[in-house]
Amino acid sequence: MEVYLDNSSTTKPISEVVDIMNKSFTEYFGNPSSLHRKGVEIEKEIKKARRKVARALGAKEKETFFTSGGTESNNLAIMGSLKANKRKGKHIITTKIEHPSVLEVFNYLEQNGYEVTYLNVNNEGIIDLDSFKNSLRDDTTLISIMFVNNEVGSIQPIEEISNITRNHKNSPILHVDAIQAFGKINYSLKSLDVDLMSISAHKFHGPKGIGALYIKEKTKLNPIVLGGKQEFGIRSGTENVPGILGMGEAAEKTITNINHNIEKLNKLRNRLLEGIKDRVDDIKINSSENINFAPHILNISFLGIKGEILLHTLEQQGIYVSTGSACSSRKKTFSHVLKEMGLRDNEMDGAIRFSFSPYNTEKEIKYTLDKLELTISDLRKVMSRR
Amino acid sequence: MEVYLDNSSTTKPISEVVDIMNKSFTEYFGNPSSLHRKGVEIEKEIKKARRKVARALGAKEKETFFTSGGTESNNLAIMGSLKANKRKGKHIITTKIEHPSVLEVFNYLEQNGYEVTYLNVNNEGIIDLDSFKNSLRDDTTLISIMFVNNEVGSIQPIEEISNITRNHKNSPILHVDAIQAFGKINYSLKSLDVDLMSISAHKFHGPKGIGALYIKEKTKLNPIVLGGKQEFGIRSGTENVPGILGMGEAAEKTITNINHNIEKLNKLRNRLLEGIKDRVDDIKINSSENINFAPHILNISFLGIKGEILLHTLEQQGIYVSTGSACSSRKKTFSHVLKEMGLRDNEMDGAIRFSFSPYNTEKEIKYTLDKLELTISDLRKVMSRR
Repeated sequence: MEVYLDNSSTTKPISEVVDIMNKSFTEYFGNPSSLHRKGVEIEKEIKKARRKVARALGAKEKETFFTSGGTESNNLAIMGSLKANKRKGKHIITTKIEHPSVLEVFNYLEQNGYEVTYLNVNNEGIIDLDSFKNSLRDDTTLISIMFVNNEVGSIQPIEEISNITRNHKNSPILHVDAIQAFGKINYSLKSLDVDLMSISAHKFHGPKGIGALYIKEKTKLNPIVLGGKQEFGIRSGTENVPGILGMGEAAEKTITNINHNIEKLNKLRNRLLEGIKDRVDDIKINSSENINFAPHILNISFLGIKGEILLHTLEQQGIYVSTGSACSSRKKTFSHVLKEMGLRDNEMDGAIRFSFSPYNTEKEIKYTLDKLELTISDLRKVMSRR
Repeated sequence: MEVYLDNSSTTKPISEVVDIMNKSFTEYFGNPSSLHRKGVEIEKEIKKARRKVARALGAKEKETFFTSGGTESNNLAIMGSLKANKRKGKHIITTKIEHPSVLEVFNYLEQNGYEVTYLNVNNEGIIDLDSFKNSLRDDTTLISIMFVNNEVGSIQPIEEISNITRNHKNSPILHVDAIQAFGKINYSLKSLDVDLMSISAHKFHGPKGIGALYIKEKTKLNPIVLGGKQEFGIRSGTENVPGILGMGEAAEKTITNINHNIEKLNKLRNRLLEGIKDRVDDIKINSSENINFAPHILNISFLGIKGEILLHTLEQQGIYVSTGSACSSRKKTFSHVLKEMGLRDNEMDGAIRFSFSPYNTEKEIKYTLDKLELTISDLRKVMSRR
């Protein structure tokens, strides 16, 4: 049996996505900028896909821009809006548990004239709203906070963050990295009232190499890639037609089924969690069962076991999990997220992330539990003999 | 009959490309950064694709970096190397007939503290080597010159440009936009001896949304997109696996068949050119038959006729051509390239670009000639009645 429980790393494209991408290889292969039919018909298809992604986001079409993926969306949101708002000030705010595509940009900006506040998180991986409020300054230009953390699934209180931001006199720009949130939690973009929001197609059964950035109307943002002025001048370069069309299908399907999906994800996660609690000792649950956590991620430390060894042992039985984030290219250090949540070295050492898709089944969870119980018992025996 | 003669805008992916992309949707759908088998096997596939593209370029694997396309490759080459060489000086050189993905970057840099020399071209669209030599200064940091022009096919003397650059004391960085050259003209990367070279997969029957940048060993270059440090830190973001694998196939096939392809392209172009010269009066050939032009582009002005009207009339007969470049999103102004080559307004007005692929056939050319002769005769009759 094969059980893929690494869906926060990437997901398998659904058949609707594959079908439309294939259509774009054969029928819709033209350049959208061409004046003839082979261009015009593809421009129409892109418009349809943009409408689908916009609707899924809860945004207008003219607020929805395609990029090459989540990392570019995050980079463009932060760098692009700072470029366009140079006079607003030199103070920017983020959290200590962001994805590298945000953290690395902030580190770069810190080395290049910006002052950065990195907000702490509590042991559930959530920022403190008072600390956030206190960190705002007269020259705060931009705030970038992730919606759902990719390693543990903690959900930040974006609506409250937005309220505080909106009441601040300098009107800072608010960017939300929603790459792990889209399709996994219900939200209203209107209530959130953020300026910028990033999503990535391959996290919700769309293709790799394509993402989108929501840019609220009237938000000033300069492009970071210049050229032929595609995407209304925000992102130049011949459109990734297969990617865009694929993303449209994936976004539509995800949002159509969101309530059912969330229910399914919660069921799968809780089934695995309860099973592990019943059958395995000496664990630390890093994503708790409360409402502060997204339904598709379960991070658990198996004490006394090295996560990487557990990962490879499970792999031999067809079960694919992660020790942390797969998004940063194979670093061997401890997770900065778990560290900021106050985990001890041995707890970080034994951490495993299970991440679910609505396409996982209860049978797969049962298989995983059976194998996990045996594997952990075996590994602990080996360890104790050392 | 359908005759697609807009291959400089974009090409149709070949079946090998489509097949491997489909494999990446179903079998190789993992994240290359994942530690388990589903990551490792894809990392291997990416390595294979990188080897294919590197070989096709004549480069080493560690000199070959994937990007989201030609526009990003050009942006990264220019912005990235200037970022890494800030102390080298503030003078940069390009030509007046570059693609927008180079020209727009230079315009931006000019507004942000750089001094730019925009080199003129002669009536064949080629720069003067003495002018280039004279434009070099003690503080010249970077030179970016396209190999083959996308609108007329003129070939710049890159080897001579490289020799002059190499003998200059400030050792400027030399970037070549080879997006229209790759697979269309034979060159040796070793003889060219450039520092940076951009290519784009969808120009040689690969997928859209993927390109590559050759970065010669020891060339200093900073990333413009930051994050998980994929592509050896040069281009962060989860790899566009389908795109990368597709590009590998397309590059391999293109270079394996290059001599045959060039011969075929020359034959198709010359057949069309000779036919037009025989059968249509009042034309101006903007890409001449001499060795200074690439074999896949034929730009001709049909005097007294509006290019756009000709384009749409041909389209009705299943023939797809371009009035200029499709890479810049539908601008209605005259081509900057034809203008710099000294064409008059009426000549620019009637310009059509035919661009070929090795998959075009002589039968298609014959059909195009028949339709073209009739269409032009008809259009001119209508025009003369006005």
